[in-house]
Amino acid sequence: MPKPPARRDTSLEHVYAVIMAGGSGTRFWPLSRRQRPKQLLELFGKGTLLAQTAARIRPLVPPERTYVFTNELLRDAIRRSLPEVPRRQIVAEPAARNTAPSLALAAHEILRRDPDGIMLALPSDHIIRKPARFLKVLRAGCKVASVEGHSVIVGLKPTEANTGYGYVRLGKIKRRLDGSEVYRVAKFIEKPKARAAARYLASGNYLWNGGMFIWRASTLLGNLRRYQPKMARGLERIARAGCATSPATLRKLYPRLEKISIDYALMQKMRSGVYALAADIGWSDVGSWSVVYDLSPKNGKGNVRPARSLCLDARRNMIVAHRKFVVAVGVEDLVIVETEDALLVCARDKSQEVGKAVQELDQQGRSDLL
Amino acid sequence: MPKPPARRDTSLEHVYAVIMAGGSGTRFWPLSRRQRPKQLLELFGKGTLLAQTAARIRPLVPPERTYVFTNELLRDAIRRSLPEVPRRQIVAEPAARNTAPSLALAAHEILRRDPDGIMLALPSDHIIRKPARFLKVLRAGCKVASVEGHSVIVGLKPTEANTGYGYVRLGKIKRRLDGSEVYRVAKFIEKPKARAAARYLASGNYLWNGGMFIWRASTLLGNLRRYQPKMARGLERIARAGCATSPATLRKLYPRLEKISIDYALMQKMRSGVYALAADIGWSDVGSWSVVYDLSPKNGKGNVRPARSLCLDARRNMIVAHRKFVVAVGVEDLVIVETEDALLVCARDKSQEVGKAVQELDQQGRSDLL
Repeated sequence: MPKPPARRDTSLEHVYAVIMAGGSGTRFWPLSRRQRPKQLLELFGKGTLLAQTAARIRPLVPPERTYVFTNELLRDAIRRSLPEVPRRQIVAEPAARNTAPSLALAAHEILRRDPDGIMLALPSDHIIRKPARFLKVLRAGCKVASVEGHSVIVGLKPTEANTGYGYVRLGKIKRRLDGSEVYRVAKFIEKPKARAAARYLASGNYLWNGGMFIWRASTLLGNLRRYQPKMARGLERIARAGCATSPATLRKLYPRLEKISIDYALMQKMRSGVYALAADIGWSDVGSWSVVYDLSPKNGKGNVRPARSLCLDARRNMIVAHRKFVVAVGVEDLVIVETEDALLVCARDKSQEVGKAVQELDQQGRSDLL
Repeated sequence: MPKPPARRDTSLEHVYAVIMAGGSGTRFWPLSRRQRPKQLLELFGKGTLLAQTAARIRPLVPPERTYVFTNELLRDAIRRSLPEVPRRQIVAEPAARNTAPSLALAAHEILRRDPDGIMLALPSDHIIRKPARFLKVLRAGCKVASVEGHSVIVGLKPTEANTGYGYVRLGKIKRRLDGSEVYRVAKFIEKPKARAAARYLASGNYLWNGGMFIWRASTLLGNLRRYQPKMARGLERIARAGCATSPATLRKLYPRLEKISIDYALMQKMRSGVYALAADIGWSDVGSWSVVYDLSPKNGKGNVRPARSLCLDARRNMIVAHRKFVVAVGVEDLVIVETEDALLVCARDKSQEVGKAVQELDQQGRSDLL
């Protein structure tokens, strides 16, 4: 008897997570350092943002199907933060090439293991306050990606006219799937000016692009061959040698790949097959100390502070201190962060400027503080 | 031949300094602690305020004629801060009885050594920015005290309507002595309300009482016998036993003396013989971090800060840090003080409230921080 035609297995057992954990932000200095970037900080309760990211998706993706892409500087710390993830699935890129090469490499790894593999690409340093809702959205997204073979972005319903995020404009066609709204994507839009952001928010026809994507690994690589043939060839050479088994090839070829985000490399170029799920999941990219303040539980005076502190006539301050007893007197709307070797005192509404201070330290040659 | 009548030697070789260093303020927390009060802080340049006090008068009073009165908790630290002062002249009072018993005890010590002794009573934790002028005023004061046998207060010309100081109202009789103005004192006045302070400033007829006095030791004790006979008797018993040679007597009798300031005990009671020198000597009692800020050299943005710090869009802040690198972003008019175990962040115009925070720490049983 002839074999029946090969049929794609679309069950959720083929879902793999690819957590992107190579970031090196400076906005949480002095808590964040080169060797301890934001994803390795415990900003909210127990566990690093990275560990919380992995834990959040665990009902859908167990550690055996979780990959983490990072760099050599962070690999050991990430292994410590995720002891349940197999060590060989925590991959250190030999050079930072942004998300497109990284995710394509992940696709090769997954495809070799599972031809029906579905990839969840997730940043490692965001928070999601409605994890159950998030899992429902992911499951719906996996169906769209798996059964229909589409590229899916998990888009966030805007709650303010934020100019710090990219947006996606939604097309007209729309349906509901397991409680999630699925839209055709009309356009990817870069960080807008304030007026445009306000318009986007008012129209209800835009979502934030939080960098969360879902594809079949084969879909991603197919699109890569079409839109980024040079990069696709480079990655195929790496894949043939075996990324994990031949680190020498990876180290030689990976740095030559174009440094480009998946948004630029693929999503913005694709004419069809790109869908967005509109997610209301309490998402935040936690972009500054001010956001941590907003999301943290406060006492009656609006202070976020450790037990070893005293606030006298002080309001709406955020105090993070690891060793010292902190006394705040008559101050308002400050961020105060004390670490082993440094102290930050920052106006809360200027906390997005902390990165500039870190640049200045870098220019002054204070690499001990970076 | 009969001996000529005893003639008092009024040369400046009989001038003794009595530095009062038992204070235990809390307004410079966390730098100041119970074991390291303000007089032991290096708030301005090199040396503690105490050491600067002793150094300032050295052209007039050498260490051999300098006495320091303090308590047992501080004695060792004070000896370290003033190694040139003979150890037995650094006297630890067994109990805090305020300035009257303290200065009377000093008078006995001096009188035993020198019947013509003249006492300069000086607080240990003030600053004087015109030290040469100060020495001229002291020399004039010593003449008035020595030759004429008067009680002299070194009064400070008010520069603002301060409600935190006592004042002296000047009488009409007035003369000049070596460039200093000498007035009969009409009245000692407690810390006034704002309107009265403004009137005092405007009238030009009032001086601040900074707690600096000059008397012959014998004059002080004579007045004590007249106005505080009970205290005088107690001190005579101590003096007979020998304060330094019989610490047991001191420990037994001293705590029984009335706890009272020299102002209340004597100066306010005396009907005549009290004179004031009007001194324009750049005096400050350095009452809060805000005053330290005002008196410290600033950079272009008005920040007072250590080399190991960075200010970005930050103005008019005072930063004191002993170990950590401090970054201030977008903040104004703050006092930031970091020590081994504590951190203070305080609005500069609220720095007089620091003492309240320390009280609160005390109530919370945080004596490790006091």
